[in-house]
Amino acid sequence: MSQSEHRRIVQKFGGSSVADAESIKRVARRVLEAKQAGNQVVVVISAMGDTTDDLMDLALEVSSEPQARELDMLLTTGERQSAALLAMALNDLGAEALSYTGSQAGVITTAQHGNARIIDITPGRIEHSLQDGYIVIVAGFQGVAQATKDVTTLGRGASDTTAVALAAALGAEICEIYSDVDGVFTADPRIVHGARKLSQISYDEMLELAACGAKILHLRCVEYARREGVTVHVRSSFSNNPGTLVTGRISLEEGNAMEEAIISGIAHDRSEAKITVVGVPDKPGVAASIFDIIADQDINVDMIVQNVSAVATGATDITFTLPMSDGAKAVESLNAAKDRIGFSEVRYDDKIGKVSVVGVGMRTHPGVTANFFNALAKAGINISMISTSEIRISVVVDVADVDAAVQAAHTAFGLDSDEEAVVYAGTGR
Amino acid sequence: MSQSEHRRIVQKFGGSSVADAESIKRVARRVLEAKQAGNQVVVVISAMGDTTDDLMDLALEVSSEPQARELDMLLTTGERQSAALLAMALNDLGAEALSYTGSQAGVITTAQHGNARIIDITPGRIEHSLQDGYIVIVAGFQGVAQATKDVTTLGRGASDTTAVALAAALGAEICEIYSDVDGVFTADPRIVHGARKLSQISYDEMLELAACGAKILHLRCVEYARREGVTVHVRSSFSNNPGTLVTGRISLEEGNAMEEAIISGIAHDRSEAKITVVGVPDKPGVAASIFDIIADQDINVDMIVQNVSAVATGATDITFTLPMSDGAKAVESLNAAKDRIGFSEVRYDDKIGKVSVVGVGMRTHPGVTANFFNALAKAGINISMISTSEIRISVVVDVADVDAAVQAAHTAFGLDSDEEAVVYAGTGR
Repeated sequence: MSQSEHRRIVQKFGGSSVADAESIKRVARRVLEAKQAGNQVVVVISAMGDTTDDLMDLALEVSSEPQARELDMLLTTGERQSAALLAMALNDLGAEALSYTGSQAGVITTAQHGNARIIDITPGRIEHSLQDGYIVIVAGFQGVAQATKDVTTLGRGASDTTAVALAAALGAEICEIYSDVDGVFTADPRIVHGARKLSQISYDEMLELAACGAKILHLRCVEYARREGVTVHVRSSFSNNPGTLVTGRISLEEGNAMEEAIISGIAHDRSEAKITVVGVPDKPGVAASIFDIIADQDINVDMIVQNVSAVATGATDITFTLPMSDGAKAVESLNAAKDRIGFSEVRYDDKIGKVSVVGVGMRTHPGVTANFFNALAKAGINISMISTSEIRISVVVDVADVDAAVQAAHTAFGLDSDEEAVVYAGTGR
Repeated sequence: MSQSEHRRIVQKFGGSSVADAESIKRVARRVLEAKQAGNQVVVVISAMGDTTDDLMDLALEVSSEPQARELDMLLTTGERQSAALLAMALNDLGAEALSYTGSQAGVITTAQHGNARIIDITPGRIEHSLQDGYIVIVAGFQGVAQATKDVTTLGRGASDTTAVALAAALGAEICEIYSDVDGVFTADPRIVHGARKLSQISYDEMLELAACGAKILHLRCVEYARREGVTVHVRSSFSNNPGTLVTGRISLEEGNAMEEAIISGIAHDRSEAKITVVGVPDKPGVAASIFDIIADQDINVDMIVQNVSAVATGATDITFTLPMSDGAKAVESLNAAKDRIGFSEVRYDDKIGKVSVVGVGMRTHPGVTANFFNALAKAGINISMISTSEIRISVVVDVADVDAAVQAAHTAFGLDSDEEAVVYAGTGR
């Protein structure tokens, strides 16, 4: 990678920021400002508004089970369109801009269509274009498979990952992720009216928040940023307010409001379901065979609880959570193995929600768990499952209790602000 | 190019054949029939219905003058979408199909965005896929520039050219061009109710018809087919009727109805305008300087007539036809050179039409011109310009007389049929 005298930045705009021609022109003006401020600018762009959903609907009209390779060929056209349109809009403003597909930009991936991983970035064309003074627009969410040379996609929401990967490969000073929210908040401002925007947050906390249902940044994007040390600036494309810096270098000297906080945020997630396998024989290897069945279906399990075995029966219950969308498949495959494994029943419940408190501060502050559980108890909320990491505590509650649980935790950890947060109409990217 | 034991065919389907999910599924069934009949099948596909126009509208919303490179990036997504969707529909029918972009299919072009020419076809990936038993779907109308590696387009309607070029490169036995018309007719069936479908036509005649306004096949496609000796079968995607074979090997032994005909068809064109430069000094180089001005604007001139110079004034009039869409530009640039060249006036008329009779038979049959002009005179139609080639006579008439002129010529050359032609709702591809 060649060093340049210019500051180099990557900006990523999501689908809601480029929903129509007017929005694209607005983004173009914003990009041009960054260029005119003396930066070398690379822009990663998502498909316009509902384009990806519309194309998916079309695919399901022609085929009951569209092949992943062809879906990738189809869906990647959305980002190519918005990339070309943004380049035109920039050219119209007198800037020089070039659009590139993921393949042209050198985004080399595995051949796993629909959910490919970035193997390498070979940004030769981008480097040349930047040095020639161009603004470079890259179609997000896509790459080219190293083995087959076929077009691939990186999974929904993965334009964030494209942006961070390019920022790392190009040695960019910062990766700005623009969406319709002002930054990362201490809780969802639509639930907690006193939610505060964080000026900074660590990679670890952002990872836990993303894994626990905060839809601000894609999990893989944060993983990538942490691994490569890319500073991410989460901000709104609808205002000039500073957003939230996601970084490994949290500086307490900077008078950050985070200084005093034990907990940086409360996340919630209503997209999971709970399965309880009742009457599982309590002998070695049985639990493993249950999760083998789930893994064979390519389903990610989140929380797991095993009850203490009842001495009388020699049987136990195993409960776990998983994405609601995989629920039917999991129940079906477990029931198919009922006789072989010897359990008595599979119970399914998708009326649950997960609430998590996240903060690096809890490493050094005892009593966080007690504080959290007391707050829930005072609000009359029943906890059905618990899981913890070094910087996170998650509980599963009834889905009807989620809002109250988030609010109770937010207040209990002193996160409430007097100012009401600005809430935008959108629902994130 | 490797020879195979299978018969190899290229099928091309236009935008009206893939206008929605149902049409795509219908095309898939048709393609599968060809595969099941033992052929190796390559399909070239256009964008769905109005996709290209819609994308162009979007481009004009974000930019007053969209750059050609970015337009190509944008517009090529339409064919990629329909190619992927057709592959999905075929897979859904149990066939194995793969879609390729122009670039992946090895369509190598010049870098002239918006109107690139095919330099070479490197069909390595297609060859392998065919030999592995796949049906190959190629996005039409596009390629990749040899010099810049940028995405290019071949000009509107150029999916026909993609199909013929691939047929030549792959050694295909035939290139089938499917649209919403049954084949090539002796005249436009919407004007002449007795118009007959031709079972065969020569490249030369087809070229003249295409150049004279028949919208069945793109001119460059026919040129390519003639140069490479590709047999083209023009037929309807809405019926199983045999269409028209365009070939160099017209066989009179086959009992072809063409045997007796002097004229194979009457074409008409209402898209041209007429410019008369009045009072041009009659000295060497002046005419050249007028057409230099037109050529500098990238305008193709069609017919040219220079009046005999008036002895008294030493000045003459020069009249020529050109595409109506270039009219304003031509008049403006001529007027800017008025003083330098020394003519007196530019007159513009776009209320004209061109009617042409085409047929290899006229080479050996005298009297064709007289027959044509007599027919027009009997119908009371005034001729304002005339041009001829070895197998064509064209006249310019008032636009209001075009239909009557086509009908009169059709009758005069004995082309009228008793059966009424089937007329589809569409207007060609």
